[in-house]
Amino acid sequence: MEVHFTRERIVVPELALESREVGACVEFLGIVREDEGGRTLTGLSYEAYEVMARTEFARIHAELAEKFSIAAATVIHRIGWVPVGEASLFVRVQAKHRGAAIGYCGELIDRMKQDVPIWKVTE
Amino acid sequence: MEVHFTRERIVVPELALESREVGACVEFLGIVREDEGGRTLTGLSYEAYEVMARTEFARIHAELAEKFSIAAATVIHRIGWVPVGEASLFVRVQAKHRGAAIGYCGELIDRMKQDVPIWKVTE
Repeated sequence: MEVHFTRERIVVPELALESREVGACVEFLGIVREDEGGRTLTGLSYEAYEVMARTEFARIHAELAEKFSIAAATVIHRIGWVPVGEASLFVRVQAKHRGAAIGYCGELIDRMKQDVPIWKVTE
Repeated sequence: MEVHFTRERIVVPELALESREVGACVEFLGIVREDEGGRTLTGLSYEAYEVMARTEFARIHAELAEKFSIAAATVIHRIGWVPVGEASLFVRVQAKHRGAAIGYCGELIDRMKQDVPIWKVTE
């Protein structure tokens, strides 16, 4: 699993298939919304404890890889100010079968929100 | 829901967010694999009964839209010869929340494989 943090706008990397056995590629963009619990935002600021975040991502990947057979996973998280309508998160998962790719992607994000030290500042 | 059929290589359309309330965008690429049940392929040929396929997609969308609150969905299916490593299917779903986007995307593909008259010719 590749994990990147960036303070720039997320640029979706060119897709390079892991092998000729990849039959499914799922991509997810998490985008900052204008309305957050009734408040109208212009953006959100994200901070991360990067060293710890990488350790947590590796741990989550190890667990999910036992449940879902995937070929590759990439995560890019933007840090700092992210305006409404721009992505704070990009995830790409390649797998032989779509069930594994979709399942891994969804659970990875759930687990990330729960366990990975990345937080938003709305002030 | 937008449905397109193409006989050319699928070009992923530029992402235009439906609104400032879209918080999740899920994309899926279904790619032709080299190995299909033990046979080594160079590609697959897809055919569709397009008029009927559009009707079925609309019906599936109507059902899924009751279950998942989404903002937009796009499907592109390639028809004719698709070499190994190239995409036969592209799906993009935008929604306020990731659960709806991921859920809709996964079920749409499951339902498509079951009910939409698109078939592959492997010879």
